[in-house]
Amino acid sequence: MVAAPASLDTLCINSIRMLAVDAVNKSNSGHPGLPMGCAPMGYALWDKFLNHNPKNPKWFNRDRFVLSAGHGCMLLYALLHLTGYDSVTIEDIKQFRQWGARTPGHPETFETPGVEVTAGPLGAGISNAVGLAIAEAHLAAKFNKPDTTIVDHFTYVIMGDGCNQEGVASEACSLAGHLKLGKLIALYDDNHITIDGRTDVSFTEDVLKRYEAYGWHVQHVTEGDTNPNSIAQAIELAKTVTDKPSIIKVTTTIGYGSPNKSDTAGVHGAPLGEEEANLTRKELNWAHDPFEIPQEAYDHYRKAIERGAKLEADWNEALAKYRSKYSSEASEFERMLRGELPTGWEKDLPRYSSNDKGLATRKHSQICLGALGPNLPELIGGSADLTHSNYTDIKGESGSFQHDSREKRYLHFGVREHAMAAVLNGIAYHNSGLIPYGGTFLVFADYMRGSMRLSALSELGVIYVLTHDSIGVGEDGPTHQPIETIPSLRAMPNMLVFRPGDGNETSGAYKIAIQNRKRPSSLCLSRQGMANQVNSSIEKVSFGGYILDDCVGTPELILIGTGSELDLCVQAAKKLTSDGHKVRVVSMPCVELFEEQSESYKNEVLPSTVRKRIVVEAAESFGWHKFIGLDGDSITMNRFGASAPGGTCMEKFGFTVDNVVNKSKKLLS
Amino acid sequence: MVAAPASLDTLCINSIRMLAVDAVNKSNSGHPGLPMGCAPMGYALWDKFLNHNPKNPKWFNRDRFVLSAGHGCMLLYALLHLTGYDSVTIEDIKQFRQWGARTPGHPETFETPGVEVTAGPLGAGISNAVGLAIAEAHLAAKFNKPDTTIVDHFTYVIMGDGCNQEGVASEACSLAGHLKLGKLIALYDDNHITIDGRTDVSFTEDVLKRYEAYGWHVQHVTEGDTNPNSIAQAIELAKTVTDKPSIIKVTTTIGYGSPNKSDTAGVHGAPLGEEEANLTRKELNWAHDPFEIPQEAYDHYRKAIERGAKLEADWNEALAKYRSKYSSEASEFERMLRGELPTGWEKDLPRYSSNDKGLATRKHSQICLGALGPNLPELIGGSADLTHSNYTDIKGESGSFQHDSREKRYLHFGVREHAMAAVLNGIAYHNSGLIPYGGTFLVFADYMRGSMRLSALSELGVIYVLTHDSIGVGEDGPTHQPIETIPSLRAMPNMLVFRPGDGNETSGAYKIAIQNRKRPSSLCLSRQGMANQVNSSIEKVSFGGYILDDCVGTPELILIGTGSELDLCVQAAKKLTSDGHKVRVVSMPCVELFEEQSESYKNEVLPSTVRKRIVVEAAESFGWHKFIGLDGDSITMNRFGASAPGGTCMEKFGFTVDNVVNKSKKLLS
Repeated sequence: MVAAPASLDTLCINSIRMLAVDAVNKSNSGHPGLPMGCAPMGYALWDKFLNHNPKNPKWFNRDRFVLSAGHGCMLLYALLHLTGYDSVTIEDIKQFRQWGARTPGHPETFETPGVEVTAGPLGAGISNAVGLAIAEAHLAAKFNKPDTTIVDHFTYVIMGDGCNQEGVASEACSLAGHLKLGKLIALYDDNHITIDGRTDVSFTEDVLKRYEAYGWHVQHVTEGDTNPNSIAQAIELAKTVTDKPSIIKVTTTIGYGSPNKSDTAGVHGAPLGEEEANLTRKELNWAHDPFEIPQEAYDHYRKAIERGAKLEADWNEALAKYRSKYSSEASEFERMLRGELPTGWEKDLPRYSSNDKGLATRKHSQICLGALGPNLPELIGGSADLTHSNYTDIKGESGSFQHDSREKRYLHFGVREHAMAAVLNGIAYHNSGLIPYGGTFLVFADYMRGSMRLSALSELGVIYVLTHDSIGVGEDGPTHQPIETIPSLRAMPNMLVFRPGDGNETSGAYKIAIQNRKRPSSLCLSRQGMANQVNSSIEKVSFGGYILDDCVGTPELILIGTGSELDLCVQAAKKLTSDGHKVRVVSMPCVELFEEQSESYKNEVLPSTVRKRIVVEAAESFGWHKFIGLDGDSITMNRFGASAPGGTCMEKFGFTVDNVVNKSKKLLS
Repeated sequence: MVAAPASLDTLCINSIRMLAVDAVNKSNSGHPGLPMGCAPMGYALWDKFLNHNPKNPKWFNRDRFVLSAGHGCMLLYALLHLTGYDSVTIEDIKQFRQWGARTPGHPETFETPGVEVTAGPLGAGISNAVGLAIAEAHLAAKFNKPDTTIVDHFTYVIMGDGCNQEGVASEACSLAGHLKLGKLIALYDDNHITIDGRTDVSFTEDVLKRYEAYGWHVQHVTEGDTNPNSIAQAIELAKTVTDKPSIIKVTTTIGYGSPNKSDTAGVHGAPLGEEEANLTRKELNWAHDPFEIPQEAYDHYRKAIERGAKLEADWNEALAKYRSKYSSEASEFERMLRGELPTGWEKDLPRYSSNDKGLATRKHSQICLGALGPNLPELIGGSADLTHSNYTDIKGESGSFQHDSREKRYLHFGVREHAMAAVLNGIAYHNSGLIPYGGTFLVFADYMRGSMRLSALSELGVIYVLTHDSIGVGEDGPTHQPIETIPSLRAMPNMLVFRPGDGNETSGAYKIAIQNRKRPSSLCLSRQGMANQVNSSIEKVSFGGYILDDCVGTPELILIGTGSELDLCVQAAKKLTSDGHKVRVVSMPCVELFEEQSESYKNEVLPSTVRKRIVVEAAESFGWHKFIGLDGDSITMNRFGASAPGGTCMEKFGFTVDNVVNKSKKLLS
C-alpha cells in the first residue's frame, strides 16, 4: 500500500499523475508511466524553483524547462495546465493526441506555447538544453554589467534512461562538462524500465560515474516517488555549484500508484485502462473524477501566475535601468529579442565578376562569415573539429567560447556532429536572436540528421555549413565523398539546401540563410575551386533557379547545373552553341526555392515544351526527374565514389565538358 | 633530441613511421601524424600478439584488428605490407590514394584484403569491433566443445580522440561493457591533438573513468612513443581480464619524429613535405631512402608468415578433429563459413491469399522471423529497445545474448540505434555466415544513417527492420512519423529499400534480404493493418515492381502504390473501372530492384506511351518523378505530419480512395 497522506504536496503531485492517467485513457494512446513516476520531481522543480511567467510564456529571462523524455509529455502538459498557462486548458488535455489539439503526442514548440523544445527522439532534449545553457551563458557574458543583470536563468531538464543511452546525449554532456555550464541542471528519472523490460537487459553502466568523468556534479535522490523535499534539497545544492553542470539521479517507480502495472514496461506506453485507473485512484486516495482537479491544488499551483508576473515586472525594471545606463547594449539586446536583423547586416557580402579568381565555395563561405561577422553580432557558431577544413572561423576574431571566455562566439564542438546540431537547435530554441551555424563535412550530415530533422520540423533557422560536397573531395575516398547526401537533405520538408555555383551564389545563399529564421539551411560547399560566372548574382539565388546563359529564341536543350558542375554546363553550352545548337543553362542553387516560385516563372525558366533537359550534378540523380522528366538525361553519380585526386575522380566519373557535350548531342539527335 | 637506439624494435617501429611519411609525401595527401605516433603500439600488437596469417587474410580464426582512426590508414597498410600481405606491396604503397590503388585514403574492406572494417567516419570502427566481438562470443558459445575449440580470437582496436568523442562509440562501448566482452581490447591513442588544435579546446573529460563506468578494464601507458614493451605488458594484462572489455590509454605524440611538426594539428592531415621528411629521417636516425625498408625489419616482420601458416595449420587440425567428433555442428559451421544458406531455409515463409486477414506488415515481419528462425540458425539480431513495437523477436525462442548466455541470438541493443547499426555491420564484417538484423522505428533510421551508409558502401548484407513507416504511426506525431525517410534511403547507392504492400510482399522482401549477403536491406513496415492482395506473390517482389491489377488493352492511367497505400490504388482502380476507365495498378515494393530489370520488362509494366501515372505513397514525393515524369501526379506527403489517430492522419492528408479517384479523373480529363 502506497502511503498517501492528504498533504497539499501529495495532492499536487497526484494531480499530475491522475491527469496523465485520465488523458492517456481518454485518447487510448500515450505514455502514463513517466508522468506518474516523475510527478514529484516535476512538482518540486516547478513549485519551488522554476522562474517562469505562465501568462507570458515567451518572457525572456524565464528558466528553461526541457522534458527530454518527450513521450512523458503529459507531465509537461499537466504542469502547464496546473500553473495556469492559457495554452493548455483542461479541454486541451481532454483532446490529448487528437487532430488539431495543442496537446500532441510529443511536445512540439510550434503547437504549444510553454513548450521550450520539441522532444520525443531520445537524447535530443538534453542536448538542446546544452545549447540553451550556452545561449544563456553567452548572452550573460555579453550583456550583463557589474551593476545590472538582465540575463540570468537556469536550464532544467528531466531525462530518462533512454536519453542516457543515446550517443547524442553523451556527446552533448561531455561538451557541457568541458564548458562548465553551471546553470544546467538535469534530473535523471532512474526508473529501471525501458520498453524491452528492465534496463539491466542492456544498460548496466554506472551513469553518475560517467557524468563525473565528464566533469559534472552528481547527486542521487533515492526517494523519488515520495519525497519531493529531498528532490528540492538536491536542486538547491545543484544551484550552488556554479562551475559544473549538475545531474541528479532520482530513483523512481514508473507508473507509480498503479497497483498492477507500476514498475513494468507495460505502463510505459499504453493506457492503464478504466479498471486499473480506478484501482490507481484507490491506491492514491484520489477521490476525484477523471479530469477533476481539487481546487486546493489549483490554488497552490496557480500562485505561479502572481510569482511570474512579479518576476517579469522586476526584470522589466532591471531592463529599464539597463536601458538608461547602457543604451547601445540595450538597443542591441532588445533588437535581438525582437528578432530583427541590424541595419546593413548584409552590406559587406561580397559580389564577384567573372574576372575574379575562382575559389572553392567553402572559401567563399569563409569570406561571407568574415563579411557578416562584424555587422551581425548575433552570429554564433563553429565546427565539429574541422575549423580549418570547413573554414568556419570569423575573420578578425580570435578565441572561442570557453568557461572563462563566454563572451566569445566561436564554438569548438569537438568531433561531435550530432551534439553540434542539437546544440545549434538549442541556441535557436532560446529564441533570443542568436543565429547559430555549424560546420562539418557534408557526408557527416548523416551523423546529425536526427537533429537536422528537428531543425526543420521545429522551424529553427540553423545554418549548416557543409563543406567537401562531392567526389571533388578526392583522396579521402568514398567514406568522405557525399553521393546521396544532397538528395537526402532535399527530401526533407522545410530544409533549404543550397549548392552555390560560385562566389555570388555563395553570398546569395548566406543572405537567404540568415534571413530565414524559421527555416534551417544546408549550405553544400566545395573543397575545390570553381569559376565565377558572368550572370550570377546574389539576388538571383532567391529564385532558387534561374537562367544563367541563354540562346536566342526557344532553346532546343536546357542544361541544369549546380555547384562545381555549373561551369561544365556553361562551357558545354558554348561548344554546343558554336556547333549551331540553341542551348540554355539554368543554374539551380536551391531546388526548394525554385519550386516555390510562381508557375509562370518556373515555366519561363523551364518551358514545359522543352523536354530535352540534362542535369549535371556530382551527386545521386535521385529527385532530379522532377525537372528532367521521362525525356531528359543526367550526368550524376549513381554509385559510391573512389579514392583519388579530386580532378581524377571528376574525370573518371564523367564530369567533363566533353561528356556533357556528348550526352547533349545524343539527346538532341 | 629523440632517443633512437638502433635496436630491432626501433627499426621496425620507424619502418612504419617512414613508410607513412613517404607515402603521404608522394601522394601529397594524407595523414602522417597518427601512424608516426601509433607505430609503437601497432608494432607491439602485431609483433607479439596478433594471430593472423598474411598469406590467407580470410583465415577464419584470426584475431581481428580494427583501425578505428581510419585516417591513419598508412599505419595499417605499413603493417600489412611489412608482415607480408600480398594485397599491399611496396608498389601499392607508392600508389597511396591514387585511382585504382589498393591503398585508398581510408581503409576499405572491398579494396584491400587484410582490412577488416571500412573506417574513416569516426567512432564507426570501435563500434564495429563490438559487433566483431559479439560474433566471436556467439559462435564460440555455439560451436566450441569442452574438448575442442574452433572459435577463439581477440578483437583489437586502435582508436583516437575523435572516436572517443563520437556518440556512436559511447553507445557501443556502454553495450560492450554490459555484455562483458572480455576479448575486445582497445588501444586509445591519447595524443592530445585534434584538427582544431589541442584536445583541451573541447575535450577534457576523464576518458578512462568513463570507460570504468561502462564496466571496462582500464590501463594507462605513459611511454607510448618509446616503449613498446610497456604497451605489450598492458596488452598481456588485458588478455587475462576475461570478464570485461579492456581499454589501454597510450599517451603518444602525434607525428613523433618530425622535429617541427610533431605535437601539432599540422601533422594530422597534411604531408610533412620533403624538407621536414629529411629532418625527420635525421631525428629518427633513419638512413634509408623513401620507400626503402631495411632487410632486418622485413626479416623480423615477415616471421608472421611462418607463424600464421602454423596457426592456421593447427586450427585446421582442431577443425578436423571437431569434424570427426561433431559432424553435424561442423557441417553447419563450415556451411556458414562458405556463406551458403541451408537447404530449405525459405520453405516456411508464409504465403497468403486475399481471404487471409490483413495484418500490419510489422506483424507479417514477425511471422517471417518466426518462420525463418528455426531454418536459419545464422539469423541473429534484435531491436534498439523496441522489441514489442518492432516485433523483432523470433517466435518460440526466449532469452537473449547476455554475458552468461552467449549462445542466444537475440540482441537487446538498448536505446542505441547508431550503435545497433554499427554492431550489425561488425557482425557482417566477421564474415562467418551470420545474418544480422536490427529493428527500430523507421524515422530513427536518421540516428543510424552514418552506419547504414557504411553497410551499403562496404557491401554488408545487414537487414534493417524499420517499423512505423508513415503518418499511419498516428498519435506519436511528427517527431515519430517518417515523411522523407524512405526517399532518403532510396537515394543511397547499394541499399535495397522495401515497402511491402501485404503479407506476400513482406515474405518476398525477407527472401531477397536474406539472399543478398552483399547488399543491405531496409524493410519499411507499417504499424497498421492492410489487406492481402489477390495477385501479389513472394516471387513478384524480386522484380521490384509489377502489374498487380490490370485492364484489358492499353491502360489510360497507371496507379503506382506501395505499402499501406497499395490497397487504396486497388480500390480506386475498381471504382474508375466501373466508371469505364482503363486502369492498371502497379505495385512497387522495391524501386531499386525494378530499376535493375530489363528495359523491356520496365516498359511492359510502365509503357513509355502511357504518361498518365499517379503514385500513391504516404511519404515525400521526392524521387517518384522518375516514374511519373512531368505529366503524372502524386498523392504523397510534402510536409511533416501531425499527432492524431493514424486513420485520421491518413484521411486528413488525402490518403483515401475518393481522393485517388478524384485525382485520377482530373488527370484523365
